[in-house]
Amino acid sequence: MPIITLTTDFGHKDHFVAALKGTILGALDEVDIVDISHGISPFNIQECAYVLKNAYQHFPKGSIHIVGVDSEKSPENEHLVVVLDGHYFVSANNGVMSLIASDSELEKVVEINLPNAETDSFPELKVFAQVACHLARGGKLEVVSKPFENFKKLKDFEPRVTNEGRTIVGNVIYIDNYGNVVTNIKKALFEAYRNGRDFEIIARTNKIRNIYNNYNGIINYGLDKNQRKGPGDALALFNASGYIELAIYKSDLKTVGGASTLLGLGYRDMITINFI
Amino acid sequence: MPIITLTTDFGHKDHFVAALKGTILGALDEVDIVDISHGISPFNIQECAYVLKNAYQHFPKGSIHIVGVDSEKSPENEHLVVVLDGHYFVSANNGVMSLIASDSELEKVVEINLPNAETDSFPELKVFAQVACHLARGGKLEVVSKPFENFKKLKDFEPRVTNEGRTIVGNVIYIDNYGNVVTNIKKALFEAYRNGRDFEIIARTNKIRNIYNNYNGIINYGLDKNQRKGPGDALALFNASGYIELAIYKSDLKTVGGASTLLGLGYRDMITINFI
Amino acid sequence: MPIITLTTDFGHKDHFVAALKGTILGALDEVDIVDISHGISPFNIQECAYVLKNAYQHFPKGSIHIVGVDSEKSPENEHLVVVLDGHYFVSANNGVMSLIASDSELEKVVEINLPNAETDSFPELKVFAQVACHLARGGKLEVVSKPFENFKKLKDFEPRVTNEGRTIVGNVIYIDNYGNVVTNIKKALFEAYRNGRDFEIIARTNKIRNIYNNYNGIINYGLDKNQRKGPGDALALFNASGYIELAIYKSDLKTVGGASTLLGLGYRDMITINFI
Repeated sequence: MPIITLTTDFGHKDHFVAALKGTILGALDEVDIVDISHGISPFNIQECAYVLKNAYQHFPKGSIHIVGVDSEKSPENEHLVVVLDGHYFVSANNGVMSLIASDSELEKVVEINLPNAETDSFPELKVFAQVACHLARGGKLEVVSKPFENFKKLKDFEPRVTNEGRTIVGNVIYIDNYGNVVTNIKKALFEAYRNGRDFEIIARTNKIRNIYNNYNGIINYGLDKNQRKGPGDALALFNASGYIELAIYKSDLKTVGGASTLLGLGYRDMITINFI
Repeated sequence: MPIITLTTDFGHKDHFVAALKGTILGALDEVDIVDISHGISPFNIQECAYVLKNAYQHFPKGSIHIVGVDSEKSPENEHLVVVLDGHYFVSANNGVMSLIASDSELEKVVEINLPNAETDSFPELKVFAQVACHLARGGKLEVVSKPFENFKKLKDFEPRVTNEGRTIVGNVIYIDNYGNVVTNIKKALFEAYRNGRDFEIIARTNKIRNIYNNYNGIINYGLDKNQRKGPGDALALFNASGYIELAIYKSDLKTVGGASTLLGLGYRDMITINFI
Repeated sequence: MPIITLTTDFGHKDHFVAALKGTILGALDEVDIVDISHGISPFNIQECAYVLKNAYQHFPKGSIHIVGVDSEKSPENEHLVVVLDGHYFVSANNGVMSLIASDSELEKVVEINLPNAETDSFPELKVFAQVACHLARGGKLEVVSKPFENFKKLKDFEPRVTNEGRTIVGNVIYIDNYGNVVTNIKKALFEAYRNGRDFEIIARTNKIRNIYNNYNGIINYGLDKNQRKGPGDALALFNASGYIELAIYKSDLKTVGGASTLLGLGYRDMITINFI
């Protein structure tokens, strides 16, 4: 069964998501429609890229991903189909796909070319759904597109290695549902420069000297419970997506706070790792 | 495959939505269950009507829509099936269907009549799901219903044309995820009275003199980027549902604010259009 | 078609839920994936148990439920499959299943035993999804598990009957989307001790002397509308799950407040019923 996913900033109350699903279900007899997220902050390309990049990889090749963030067509924001890693992305040319493609090979970028498409303020419904359904039916990409050369490339913050390889300076790229703070420093980069040295991660006034593979890496299960570290303690880990992440163990952002509020870290804030 | 949609004020945490889905999946071998919205404000008939009206039209005819807002049965709130525009709505007689039906022809209104239905505080589960599954299996409406004459009609605010056709006075009927403010003035009404005249839209202390078909209608792409209007500027547009809407270009309600907060407009507030 | 449900504290923005769904859809040709809730408060076992207990019963027997709350594996938090009431639960041994099983017979508890499973910080993806898909394909439980004896049992607050059967003291166990306050006092317990007596429910400074079967039990439809009780009035009911619940009639927690805020009741707070 073909899979069409939806990643938007439509939120969870309005009719937009359902209108899109109804349109797709009316056009296809069999389809799995999967919500990736409708909680992207409005027009936030970076956030959309982070969520979609870490979600799409877990879908089967051939999946079709509608990207409904900052999608209105303009002379500077064309409608595209991007083929990446065996997946189809129906998106505007706002740079989001360049952020997603940074780690993978871009197979194809074409501009959507539908003869009678309306260009109103809801292109996901009038354009993206139509293209996605065409592809889901096994239709050829060429039928709904034309060549395109002007793919917009956004540069995201990249970690910098300085101080003769003794320091990595990264930035916060995402804050998750738990308030955990994801940096743009990947495990592979960290390991490439570490060379077995000790290190300290500096986040504002906090210093962290270990990185675990699990949140509960912070717990020494050999100790009595009242001697262990536990809820409320800060830690660093290589998260499941391969990034270095700062967390507060078993914390609730909405009550006691999470790493973002308790360590005082926001989007783009600097994280420094010094090898010692 | 039959389609059953859900529009409720159940929110996104409790077990209610899942209990409903489990019941439907237990009764039907094949069905597409689609969430329209579970974010309707509790007991808010007007909001429910706006969201459902703008969503259901995009589903195939024959779809079955469960309306789970203010649904408890009482001597003044009977359980109905309403057939409208080729769609089935399973709903209480609280007026929501009259608001949805205002623009379309009502085909049939019958009262639900299940022999052994429990009447507890969760009728979506015990009554609405049962009726929806009966219809989804191709069962006859008559088997689960009886005639009904007492359809509740709610009057919503309607735009008024005054001042010898030189003024339209409308109201805010919905505020969306972006803080965009939707009025009850439709494009067709506006055009019927405009007669080629200039106009100004007055929303509290703000005046807007253009209406676009897209949000980025406000941008003059012929100008240099630093000379253009852009994020933060107010605009009016005919939205994808045909209503006049006030928006702040590319704004985020949760950070810098949206049209509702920046223009100071709430539900029911007055919007005036003067033709000049 | 097999059914796999998801109950997590992942929230509605991050990529976690979609990664899980993509993985399942990649492994199974036919499956209904149903969200029970992703709004569980982080690491809140009690809340997770309440929502899942009241949802799973409405799914067909044989359904597979992934429980993604506090799921990281540790020497004290093993990965389990629990068979209960004909349903499969894939969960960590953190006590949540003991809270759900309190009313039903536990059929089987085994420990997950996958030969090559990664143990990172996202076990729902690497372990739970794999086990759920194996079971959904009709695979034997023994193939992915081994015997387990150390099932963690959490004790939840239980209502106490005191004062020679004249008083029941219970606690708030859940606050729902409407701000309604669910107690741990079940209808059956209440009826067992009532013996036809009058009673008063004491919640802080409020006294309530009736319990209805519906929210609109509070309304006397024989009276003129302006003489009736209505929106804003407090009431008690036996809710659809069989618990005594305190509510404010047709209230909106986010605007005027709900029973939790207007009666001043939080999780674990005491509710007393005196028979008179």
